[in-house]
Amino acid sequence: MRLELSRTTAIATILALSGAFANSASAAESLQDVMKRRNLSEKDMLAAAKTYTPSGGRDEFLTFSSSGHAGSIIVYGIPSMRIYKYIAVFTPEPWQGYGFDDESKALLKAGSPQGQTINWGDTHHPNLSKTNGDYDGQWLFINDKSTPRIAVISLKDFETRQIVVNPVLTNEHGGAFVTNNTEYVMEASQLPSPLGHKYAPLDKFNDEFRGGITYWKFNKDAGKIEQENSFTLELPPYSQDLVSSGKGPSEDWAFLNSFCSERYVGGIESGKPPFEAGCSANDTDFMHIINWKKAEAVFKAGKFTKINGMAVIPLKTVIDEGLVYLVPEPKSPHGVDVSPDGKFVIVGGKLDSHGSVFDFAKMKAQIDAKKFVGKDAYGFPILDMKESLHTQVALGLGPLHNQYDSKPCVVYTSLYVDSQIVKWDYCQGKVLDKIAIQYNVGHLLTMGGDTMHPDGHYLVALNKLSIDRFNPVGPLHPQNHQLIDISGDKMELLYDLPIGLGEPHQAVAIRADKLKPTIRYKYGTDSRTEEESKFAVRPGSEKIVRTPGKVEVFGTVIRSHYNPEIVEAEEGDQVTFHWTNSERAEDETHGFAISQNDVNLSLEPGKTASATIEHAKAGVYPYYCTEFCSALHLEMEGYLMVRPKGSAIEKASTNVGTVYTKADFDKQYKACLDTQSVIDKVVAYITSTNFKDFPTAVGQVEDATDQLKFGTEARAKADDYAKKEDWQNATLWAGQWWQYQVKAADIGLRTKTYLEQNGARTVK
Amino acid sequence: MRLELSRTTAIATILALSGAFANSASAAESLQDVMKRRNLSEKDMLAAAKTYTPSGGRDEFLTFSSSGHAGSIIVYGIPSMRIYKYIAVFTPEPWQGYGFDDESKALLKAGSPQGQTINWGDTHHPNLSKTNGDYDGQWLFINDKSTPRIAVISLKDFETRQIVVNPVLTNEHGGAFVTNNTEYVMEASQLPSPLGHKYAPLDKFNDEFRGGITYWKFNKDAGKIEQENSFTLELPPYSQDLVSSGKGPSEDWAFLNSFCSERYVGGIESGKPPFEAGCSANDTDFMHIINWKKAEAVFKAGKFTKINGMAVIPLKTVIDEGLVYLVPEPKSPHGVDVSPDGKFVIVGGKLDSHGSVFDFAKMKAQIDAKKFVGKDAYGFPILDMKESLHTQVALGLGPLHNQYDSKPCVVYTSLYVDSQIVKWDYCQGKVLDKIAIQYNVGHLLTMGGDTMHPDGHYLVALNKLSIDRFNPVGPLHPQNHQLIDISGDKMELLYDLPIGLGEPHQAVAIRADKLKPTIRYKYGTDSRTEEESKFAVRPGSEKIVRTPGKVEVFGTVIRSHYNPEIVEAEEGDQVTFHWTNSERAEDETHGFAISQNDVNLSLEPGKTASATIEHAKAGVYPYYCTEFCSALHLEMEGYLMVRPKGSAIEKASTNVGTVYTKADFDKQYKACLDTQSVIDKVVAYITSTNFKDFPTAVGQVEDATDQLKFGTEARAKADDYAKKEDWQNATLWAGQWWQYQVKAADIGLRTKTYLEQNGARTVK
Repeated sequence: MRLELSRTTAIATILALSGAFANSASAAESLQDVMKRRNLSEKDMLAAAKTYTPSGGRDEFLTFSSSGHAGSIIVYGIPSMRIYKYIAVFTPEPWQGYGFDDESKALLKAGSPQGQTINWGDTHHPNLSKTNGDYDGQWLFINDKSTPRIAVISLKDFETRQIVVNPVLTNEHGGAFVTNNTEYVMEASQLPSPLGHKYAPLDKFNDEFRGGITYWKFNKDAGKIEQENSFTLELPPYSQDLVSSGKGPSEDWAFLNSFCSERYVGGIESGKPPFEAGCSANDTDFMHIINWKKAEAVFKAGKFTKINGMAVIPLKTVIDEGLVYLVPEPKSPHGVDVSPDGKFVIVGGKLDSHGSVFDFAKMKAQIDAKKFVGKDAYGFPILDMKESLHTQVALGLGPLHNQYDSKPCVVYTSLYVDSQIVKWDYCQGKVLDKIAIQYNVGHLLTMGGDTMHPDGHYLVALNKLSIDRFNPVGPLHPQNHQLIDISGDKMELLYDLPIGLGEPHQAVAIRADKLKPTIRYKYGTDSRTEEESKFAVRPGSEKIVRTPGKVEVFGTVIRSHYNPEIVEAEEGDQVTFHWTNSERAEDETHGFAISQNDVNLSLEPGKTASATIEHAKAGVYPYYCTEFCSALHLEMEGYLMVRPKGSAIEKASTNVGTVYTKADFDKQYKACLDTQSVIDKVVAYITSTNFKDFPTAVGQVEDATDQLKFGTEARAKADDYAKKEDWQNATLWAGQWWQYQVKAADIGLRTKTYLEQNGARTVK
Repeated sequence: MRLELSRTTAIATILALSGAFANSASAAESLQDVMKRRNLSEKDMLAAAKTYTPSGGRDEFLTFSSSGHAGSIIVYGIPSMRIYKYIAVFTPEPWQGYGFDDESKALLKAGSPQGQTINWGDTHHPNLSKTNGDYDGQWLFINDKSTPRIAVISLKDFETRQIVVNPVLTNEHGGAFVTNNTEYVMEASQLPSPLGHKYAPLDKFNDEFRGGITYWKFNKDAGKIEQENSFTLELPPYSQDLVSSGKGPSEDWAFLNSFCSERYVGGIESGKPPFEAGCSANDTDFMHIINWKKAEAVFKAGKFTKINGMAVIPLKTVIDEGLVYLVPEPKSPHGVDVSPDGKFVIVGGKLDSHGSVFDFAKMKAQIDAKKFVGKDAYGFPILDMKESLHTQVALGLGPLHNQYDSKPCVVYTSLYVDSQIVKWDYCQGKVLDKIAIQYNVGHLLTMGGDTMHPDGHYLVALNKLSIDRFNPVGPLHPQNHQLIDISGDKMELLYDLPIGLGEPHQAVAIRADKLKPTIRYKYGTDSRTEEESKFAVRPGSEKIVRTPGKVEVFGTVIRSHYNPEIVEAEEGDQVTFHWTNSERAEDETHGFAISQNDVNLSLEPGKTASATIEHAKAGVYPYYCTEFCSALHLEMEGYLMVRPKGSAIEKASTNVGTVYTKADFDKQYKACLDTQSVIDKVVAYITSTNFKDFPTAVGQVEDATDQLKFGTEARAKADDYAKKEDWQNATLWAGQWWQYQVKAADIGLRTKTYLEQNGARTVK
């Protein structure tokens, strides 16, 4: 028993031991043993080699997937298929403080329909901002199908920056697709309704129910959608579906599917067949061919009416100005996908069995020649389907969506009913390969598959059913995203990724090297606006401002304490905390929760966030850090003291707890001095290496230097109090000095191991 | 161009083709090529082989991890390290309908402090129910640190079943730990406060602030915590921390850590050192040794007071009755972990550098002999530390938590400051191995590591910082759970799992074969109570009940329609939808969202759930399925028609849209007959095999049989209407027959592929 082993000796012992336990490769089992035990084939091992990513490894692509009615975005890597983040968008999420700090509450309120609180969204189609038809790595957009809305997410910090509410459409699906240079974000309605959320009976469906597509103007520099520069086209009451922007020769155009052009209105409760029968009776529906560039000119010329503040170009104007044409497409289509060169539009009619390749030039020629086969019930000109097609290819049952390869003329289509992916040549019109997936694939994803320069390599099948693929976890199953290698002639299944939260619809994937996320905020940033917060304070300038009925705290957080720690208020006061995280170190996030209250903040380095209690109740409310930030994380705490209304203020006192003597001070002080000499040894080791060649190590050394500086400041206070023979405060400040030393030692040891593991060499 | 290729011919073509594209193993790259390209070592390949799980493979263990302030539980598999589910607990989550259906709203309301809405929780320590000290696979518990609460989760459906609010404690940490037979769930306070949420100034900290531990009585058969049979022990105002139940010889006892026994109250805003300094000044804190069995007897004898309805055994009674003893433990401890045989309690004092092995028998002997070294400020007897210890072992810096191996005397301890896991022998008192982790590990996890029979094999380091381990995703980083192979003498790092949502604290892992989750609910189950819902109806019995100011819908859902589809209401009405999912098929979940409303339900097979709009606004509100359930999912829709107050009822009409003739009927009917012959061929193939040997295939065949039966019913309606020469309804019902055929074909093709891939053979 070495009960009395001092802290310092312990540190030294550990440092000495660390070499002895260097992690040598003494594999008890051989690779063949493991394969046999786990029943792995050579093909499995090849798939493992193509996906397994050792500690510290990087993925080639980052995927942004919708989470469906979970209301967020899922970020995962390819080929490791590891989920790196859920980005909160429409649904409040406390880990990120989203919907829990005042700043994001304001964002969500601005993004809710007037007078309503909507605490979720049905995210479907994430899309990345593009410059000249390729991803530029700046912005991400996603739609809400249930309450038509578009959200803008910054790819600097992976946070939602804006939500806009569509004041005209009641339900949508075809968002958030962008034009080739992100001039606009498109949002098309799905289930028809009277525009502007009006009431009309179903009897008046033909005349008063409508579809529509909104062009949301995006200001790429500001990262903001500008509603005043946005407009909506009124469309017939079909169920408009997905929309795809033109590229190159078709850049000024967009292509919008529809289903239920039968305009069936259901009624199973009255003995009528359900919607699914009535909406799938005809052999064809209509693709809408939209000249959005011309529509923009019509909008700018003022030829619109306003509905709930949104400019709407009326049906008649849309027809008269030649903004939208129709062409029949195979029944109940889903995917509409423009080829990388912008010359073709491939449509999967899910109840047909073909991939239908529409030729933009052929359609444009008919439009230019005003050569139409007829008009729909509303007067929209209809192109000839056969004359618009380049080819149709029998693909299989339930063709849904199409994604392009880096190889010319190669496209992949998801077959829902067949549970397959089909690879085919859309120029020659022939099937090249098929692979079974498990089960019933909806969207599929290739790398940059909707850009002008797809990256090839991988494909993901976003399957809707997993059934027996995973360990069972109750009646609600995860989805199954299957990674498929498409680099060779044959598709090869690599990996099954369960999605344990949400039901993704579509995903987009970008080359990881195109993204340059930040690791810290500029000091005092309101991350929800990306602007400097007026509530930020620097360490040393913290304050509590009291006005009648109101207490406002301007504080800072750092490993591992709040300043202030004690906040007094009176029952009924409005109490607001503004915290700024003064850390610079990567990944040094702090949290802030107040017990018994609906308050939690996530404070990343540099961020300022606020929490308000509108009417404080009398009581004692501990607050504490919710992110495990250092060895002393559990001690990162404070008290909000709410005295009963009208009671006298009683000052906090330290006349409780333990009393310290000179002996205590001397013991603590000596421990600090001993610890410093150990730290000096670690510092000597690090600075003897080429640590400056390792960015991770450089960041750590900066952080450790900060901690030692803070320690020096605490030591000065201890020295001061010791001079005054105030052993209580002298001992405690010496303890605080030691806490900073522990933090520096923590970082130093982490760095030492990192350098050893990554082959640093001695340079002096 | 084969534009006119009929649906049926297409099905036949595809069936014929499917063999030609059987997925042969034509690997373009060899394993060596891939290893070279991806820079993988042989050690990496060994780790890949130990973790990679091919499609359909099963994990050996299921892990339940807290998600910290995300307020949920994360379920992932070991060794694949794939996340299968996030279980919503304290935070509403729309994908699961949790906090969005009336049933879970009631559960969350009952689980919120009176008069408050708390939309999040700070989950820390999930724990599994035990029988005789081993997991029984029935129930899961988790605590909320911020607002002291305990949740009960059923392992049948992985849903939260109950939340109880602690009416006495204001803040906690030490939950939800169970006694050896799950008699009680323990919940210990952390930051001291006056009991029962009263106010007292900090000046009165010594006298009026208190700690406490609640023993929540658990009824294992009912799956319910019974507050009336629960009690709380009043404790001194230390920061009580984790608690661990005794086992075997120590089964009637529990061991509760504490820190800040200095009783420091901070005050950095007044120039005082922060909490972190004042709470870590002393060399030792106190472990509380609790005789919970005796406390239960004291409670049953009525020796308690009541605070906010909770029985509280006062401090003096706790002392007088000998319910709690103290023993000094190394400063600022975190982990307190009883060995599998119940003989030892290992404590990691995080600012000490030792693992301290307390010997229960030695402590018990002192208690029995009433041999104490003194009393604390409140009169609690203190045992002699040296006499209580079996041994202390220098482990490293920042020892936090301990988990046991299946090998005798072997324990693993997380070293926070050193960023290491240390493997050591607690009988002999010697270190066996160390491994570096990335970075700063909090809790660690071995398989069944807190049971009487740990499973060994694997260890997970729940690291708090990932820094440079993953592709960057902004200032807020994922956590890093590192899987380590502990089957050999040396620990080997296998896998880094990023946690992209939440900040896990603790996790528990159970052998997967101990869990038997259900795949469907008994028809009409309210999953939040697991009882039969009084709102369930069978298909054919759907109804809309109208009373003044109220519309109540009792409906069913199935692939792919609602019944009813059209619901009329008047502005201001309270509108409630009760839906029952009449599916039997595994994974056939439907959703229910109402556009422009805060409503989304998740309806798994057999489940009944409800949604209420309190005051309907005038307008047209499409409702739709949010789970992609079949090819016709997008057509699974309906309309809630809310007419303006006082306006007349206008009946829905089908006099809109398309009109069908006899020719349309004949065409559709022929398509159905042709399709049936193709389906018959698939059925013939399936039934020619030993499909009954494959449970997945058997389930599919049952489902397909259901669909064909529904199809026959629709056909009968079509025949009826045809007899009456009502071609409109005849055509639409024939279309509905075809929709059921498509569903049957979908399932049949899925099954055919499954049987081919899984080596089914011909039996007739």
